[in-house]
Amino acid sequence: MNPRAAVFSGGDNGDWHVQSITAACGETLAEVSRVQITDSQEPMYPDQAVWRLQGVTSNVRYATQAEKQQLSEKQAGLGRTEARLAALIPIRKTADWWELAQDRRRQIFEQASKHIRIGLQYLPAIARRLYHCRDLSIGQPFDFLTWFEFAPADSPAFDALLGELRATQEWQFVEREVDIRLVRE
Amino acid sequence: MNPRAAVFSGGDNGDWHVQSITAACGETLAEVSRVQITDSQEPMYPDQAVWRLQGVTSNVRYATQAEKQQLSEKQAGLGRTEARLAALIPIRKTADWWELAQDRRRQIFEQASKHIRIGLQYLPAIARRLYHCRDLSIGQPFDFLTWFEFAPADSPAFDALLGELRATQEWQFVEREVDIRLVRE
Repeated sequence: MNPRAAVFSGGDNGDWHVQSITAACGETLAEVSRVQITDSQEPMYPDQAVWRLQGVTSNVRYATQAEKQQLSEKQAGLGRTEARLAALIPIRKTADWWELAQDRRRQIFEQASKHIRIGLQYLPAIARRLYHCRDLSIGQPFDFLTWFEFAPADSPAFDALLGELRATQEWQFVEREVDIRLVRE
Repeated sequence: MNPRAAVFSGGDNGDWHVQSITAACGETLAEVSRVQITDSQEPMYPDQAVWRLQGVTSNVRYATQAEKQQLSEKQAGLGRTEARLAALIPIRKTADWWELAQDRRRQIFEQASKHIRIGLQYLPAIARRLYHCRDLSIGQPFDFLTWFEFAPADSPAFDALLGELRATQEWQFVEREVDIRLVRE
């Protein structure tokens, strides 16, 4: 398997307890009590999963060298003891988005929507890892999975971050978005 | 499976007869007599394949709207009767390439290397389809597979195209490249 792959399995197993599953846009995902994250295609309890979402970390698609450097200097890693809360946000964008050329997508992503600039304001409190799933060999229901970790005190900031992003031009190209909130056991 | 996925199986089956397999850079692939192309993960003769390369067509990564338009206006589709020759060119780029931010990769790809401008000179004679394989869930030996089709009379032009691309700055980031030439039965 790809060493950059991960699987998020929703069911009755895993270290992360589900607090809520809400559709921000389009169809939701089935209710489950826990999410298990595995870095392989063979989760420990595959038969018991209600849903499984796969993704792969990859190279940056839009960030410039300066932006990549800023993000890298400011961001925190996953697994901080105080970051007991998490969110898993699967997103699918429209066919129109994917038909756009690179310069048009970059223009909407950053010049119009300030995606990176908004994200930078919430670092290092909100730690983040992006997984791509649009180009897996097995078709997936989403294009991206983003995993966020933060301390309970930063929960309002996280909601503000989502509010800012969802108001952007970029989000007019989001056709499905599910917001899964979790707490570590 | 992903509707954009394809599998190239090297073995004794398939419509495309192998004329030669040459490593342009790095390790070669095993000699086989034919290549079978399937649009699914279940080739007809999976047990008989000596090697299998998977990929997925995807959105453009570097082309601007103007370049995408130019390519689209000038390029021919696959499957032309006169295009009896083909080439399958799997490529892997270095870890350094993938660590570069988007603006640096674009700068090398087009401003320094003129990848699109070179390619445009050979349209519509050389038809082309690009498959991505770096972000599949099952790890792959290459990052891209490019499939080219052309008439026998355009074979020297195809060699010239490869020569131009291999002399670019972009190709300094290629660490493995195999050149498989084929003829349709």
